[in-house]
Amino acid sequence: MRPQPPSEDDTVARMGEFGLIHRVTRGRAQPASTLLGPGDDAAVVAAPDGRVVATTDMLVEGVHFRLDWSSPEQVGRKAAAVNMADVAAMGAMPTALLVGFGCPPETSTTLVDDLVAGLWQEANQCGAGVVGGDMVTADKLVISITALGDLGGREPVTRFGAQVGDVIAVCGRLGWAAAGLAVLGRGFRSPVSVVNAQRVPEPPYAAGPQAARAGATAMLDVSDGLLADLGHIADSSEVAVDIRTELLEVHQRLIDVASALGADPRHWVLTGGEDHALVAAFPDPREVPDGWRTIGTVRAGQGVTVDGLPYEGPSGWEHWRQ
Amino acid sequence: MRPQPPSEDDTVARMGEFGLIHRVTRGRAQPASTLLGPGDDAAVVAAPDGRVVATTDMLVEGVHFRLDWSSPEQVGRKAAAVNMADVAAMGAMPTALLVGFGCPPETSTTLVDDLVAGLWQEANQCGAGVVGGDMVTADKLVISITALGDLGGREPVTRFGAQVGDVIAVCGRLGWAAAGLAVLGRGFRSPVSVVNAQRVPEPPYAAGPQAARAGATAMLDVSDGLLADLGHIADSSEVAVDIRTELLEVHQRLIDVASALGADPRHWVLTGGEDHALVAAFPDPREVPDGWRTIGTVRAGQGVTVDGLPYEGPSGWEHWRQ
Repeated sequence: MRPQPPSEDDTVARMGEFGLIHRVTRGRAQPASTLLGPGDDAAVVAAPDGRVVATTDMLVEGVHFRLDWSSPEQVGRKAAAVNMADVAAMGAMPTALLVGFGCPPETSTTLVDDLVAGLWQEANQCGAGVVGGDMVTADKLVISITALGDLGGREPVTRFGAQVGDVIAVCGRLGWAAAGLAVLGRGFRSPVSVVNAQRVPEPPYAAGPQAARAGATAMLDVSDGLLADLGHIADSSEVAVDIRTELLEVHQRLIDVASALGADPRHWVLTGGEDHALVAAFPDPREVPDGWRTIGTVRAGQGVTVDGLPYEGPSGWEHWRQ
Repeated sequence: MRPQPPSEDDTVARMGEFGLIHRVTRGRAQPASTLLGPGDDAAVVAAPDGRVVATTDMLVEGVHFRLDWSSPEQVGRKAAAVNMADVAAMGAMPTALLVGFGCPPETSTTLVDDLVAGLWQEANQCGAGVVGGDMVTADKLVISITALGDLGGREPVTRFGAQVGDVIAVCGRLGWAAAGLAVLGRGFRSPVSVVNAQRVPEPPYAAGPQAARAGATAMLDVSDGLLADLGHIADSSEVAVDIRTELLEVHQRLIDVASALGADPRHWVLTGGEDHALVAAFPDPREVPDGWRTIGTVRAGQGVTVDGLPYEGPSGWEHWRQ
């Protein structure tokens, strides 16, 4: 066998762990909050608040993403986004990502390059750094990210602080990823706007600290669906939440896609996950910040209702949940 | 099919994600540093130093551990230990763990219980909490841990600060895990002392901050082997390191096991990984703290030598590296 020439499309096995780590960290500009970046036993990240917000999510190929639906760069962006959305939902700003990455030895280094480029692209939106990681052999791609964040002197906004009389408001998109999943599930690749919403969420990161400053009493990011996630706030806060459909924005693009697929766009908005919008409770309707839309109220009782009634929508969407 | 009665040996699939999270967090006492524990979008951990140390390691079944060699509890302890050793090697004390956990749906909840018990057992040794996690479906067990730590006002001890004239000292065991791996690899299960050293390392966590207080100029934990890891200090610090074999402690137990297997115990001490001893450089031999053993010196030049010569030991052990 002739010696292999060096190639941009080499495999992870031939590159080796140290070569790969060099490859994915070289030429990256760390933010000022990264006091010590990759390459030592551990990273050191500024935590000026004296507390650090931390969350972790693991994504597995074939379960949370498909490489025939998403590019490696999109997978990297999504892996970073779902974690940083959790940090934002506490009212904090993301400062750093740590990345555990498992892949088969025959994985091309180009795939790794693209995935890491996606991680950095998303991290840069928050001024966060990719400060550390680990690369191991696995049968399928596994990406496990931990995001750290800083509260900037504010109290964390949990799920258990909503009070009777609060209003519920949302910032970010609802139903777009569900529409995209419905499109992809039927073998289509367009319209690109909804398909890309499924591939890469666009959490409104800065809206997290914004809501905290505005006095939000409870907040989370919509990962499982608006009604399901509001259920967590209702349960944790021991209150009821009622959503008014006349206050829900259903974008014309969703209406068009739903019409083409014979689906109910309002159902996507109420139950679709993976958009990572932020939803929060505010004590004073006049203090709901710019960019947030009031969609309901907090009442005495328990559970989540839509226009005062239990929601009895079509259950077909659950079938597509990955 | 008759309804299944509730069982302690239920599967992850039947328990569901929320049931599992409840199961693995119930009844756990969080340390004071856990300001907000599991159950919200993210945890909040005290970072009194104003900086946070963070590191991540991923362990894959069949690559980093085998369930026919180790119990789930031992796997949990090891997963926590390898991460907390990295925190200690910066001179910091571990404060919190976040755990990404992937497993097949048919995994028994007893296995998860035992693994989590092992995580907590090891975390408790440092006063750290298990503050967050994620559970997902995967083909094999995957455990991805991020450990956080606090520097207590000290500067982090990196790999690049060793100076010519420093002494090299070690705290913790060397060669024990390699001896255990050799035993397991030949199908034996005893002596238990060396086999358990392979299953669960015993990093001397408190020795990390101790060394930092004593003025250590460089430090790391021995995960790949003493000579390989000292190579990182030599390369990063642009110095040479020489180890004196007459200063190396070779425990009688290792000599006995090596004799039985026809192996060289000194080779295990010099090249065996996975014990997670701490090795550090100190400017003043008189300042080497209690519990540390001086084993060599830092010189001008590059690379690592043993008694002044390149090490040319048997290479058989690499074969067993997982």
